[in-house]
Amino acid sequence: MPVSQRIETALRRALDAAGAGAAPRKLVSAVDHAVLPGGARIRPTILMAVARACGEDRPALSDRAAAALELIHCASLVHDDLPCFDNADLRRGKPSVHRAFSEPLAVLAGDSLIVMAFDVLGRADRKDAARVLDLIRCLSTRTGLPNGICAGQGWESEFEIDLRAYHRAKTGSLFMAACEMGALSAGQAPENWTDMGALIGEAFQVADDLRDALLDKETLGKPVQQDDLHGRPNVVAELGVDGAVARLRDILAGAIASIPSCEGEAALAGMVRAQAEQIVPKLPQRTRFAG
Amino acid sequence: MPVSQRIETALRRALDAAGAGAAPRKLVSAVDHAVLPGGARIRPTILMAVARACGEDRPALSDRAAAALELIHCASLVHDDLPCFDNADLRRGKPSVHRAFSEPLAVLAGDSLIVMAFDVLGRADRKDAARVLDLIRCLSTRTGLPNGICAGQGWESEFEIDLRAYHRAKTGSLFMAACEMGALSAGQAPENWTDMGALIGEAFQVADDLRDALLDKETLGKPVQQDDLHGRPNVVAELGVDGAVARLRDILAGAIASIPSCEGEAALAGMVRAQAEQIVPKLPQRTRFAG
Repeated sequence: MPVSQRIETALRRALDAAGAGAAPRKLVSAVDHAVLPGGARIRPTILMAVARACGEDRPALSDRAAAALELIHCASLVHDDLPCFDNADLRRGKPSVHRAFSEPLAVLAGDSLIVMAFDVLGRADRKDAARVLDLIRCLSTRTGLPNGICAGQGWESEFEIDLRAYHRAKTGSLFMAACEMGALSAGQAPENWTDMGALIGEAFQVADDLRDALLDKETLGKPVQQDDLHGRPNVVAELGVDGAVARLRDILAGAIASIPSCEGEAALAGMVRAQAEQIVPKLPQRTRFAG
Repeated sequence: MPVSQRIETALRRALDAAGAGAAPRKLVSAVDHAVLPGGARIRPTILMAVARACGEDRPALSDRAAAALELIHCASLVHDDLPCFDNADLRRGKPSVHRAFSEPLAVLAGDSLIVMAFDVLGRADRKDAARVLDLIRCLSTRTGLPNGICAGQGWESEFEIDLRAYHRAKTGSLFMAACEMGALSAGQAPENWTDMGALIGEAFQVADDLRDALLDKETLGKPVQQDDLHGRPNVVAELGVDGAVARLRDILAGAIASIPSCEGEAALAGMVRAQAEQIVPKLPQRTRFAG
């Protein structure tokens, strides 16, 4: 089964379990809305690629890890879109959860998705319990305080932002989790993979800044120029478009160079290049990622 | 060390870990505000009592389970108080998190607390990995969809409420988790303990309805007559005060009768009676729980 299909199947299975029996239907629909149809599923795709590069020996566990990671990502989007944060009407080209349902249901959908992520891991085969525990610890570390994505979003409420901590936590965390959890699901040590995750996260941040600055709302499927609007730091404002594209190219080269020596090294480098094409998909030609 | 001190120590340890290093300070303070000083800590106290009754052989694990459960409870209070739900200014006699900090920080504090709960369990000793996994699965089941507390809160957004599912999920879930997780931390099967949890949850719901209907805001430390205000079902409206008190007495007798035969059965029955006194602490004399 192709990786993309494995990811969708694992997500579908988690959603079906969440919607079983006498669950309140609107909340179930809100959760479905937040997860399906998905975006590029970049994080779980990276996770799967790293697991494969590490000699994946428990595909069912990688499937669960990938689904858990994507569920946390979806939760963060739902809550970030809330009126008290970005107040975004659109997400992935359709109404955000609080617009399509309501604010209470968006808060609860995000909460439910966070819990689902840990539930999906918690239901893994007990014979792999120690490995599953490592995955849970990695996911909670990259999601919560002191420096996961919750912390990243929390930096926006501080008077003075520690920019490096902010970007690393807000965007980097789940890419680090993707690489680390890929290694962990294959029973490998995660430490060698953290740098690659951090660099992909940085690349993604620059790409996102470029898209936010350059694309229109229709192409992007969500509100644009949110950084300007919310006074958030943005690399395009700092370096200009050409400077940001050069930075993006450097970071991605660094990410590829950081891949630890392993069986699937070459395939993984190819995957990073392919993902790089995806994260800057519709920019004017001169800004495409070439290297 | 007395149980109450074990619970506070475990919570303090989790909060310290969350606030370590370069964490954003306001979010860390918001999370502290949500957890400290606590309420009666009824759920973790029940958990500890059940663990003891089951021949507690891993006190460090019960400590983690108790802290995790209380963190989920605190998260649910923070989010329930948000303007889009109860819009409560007060909680435990002080400003609710969104009033003391801000709405974004309250959303993030709740999210962070949910993640912390799983993190606390995920960091348990790996030699107990299988048991820890059972605890994680129990906690996620009782927290998320299809019938944990998220589902319970979700019922309030439905046109037609399934009253039994609503109460069982919203109030009962974490009491069921308390009993089940107590048994699980001691390596015992949780199934025999579910009924006791469900009954204590029902008693707590009735007691809460009584307090909501009878007490003033100052005594209660949070807004009163919220059920009337939000059009929520309330057993006092249905049965009257005396009827509700009689119902409370019956349910608690049932909870005590449901305690499975075990070493610490008598001690546990005593604890349930003591908790019963706590959950109706300041009602007019005639409504005190006598049995």
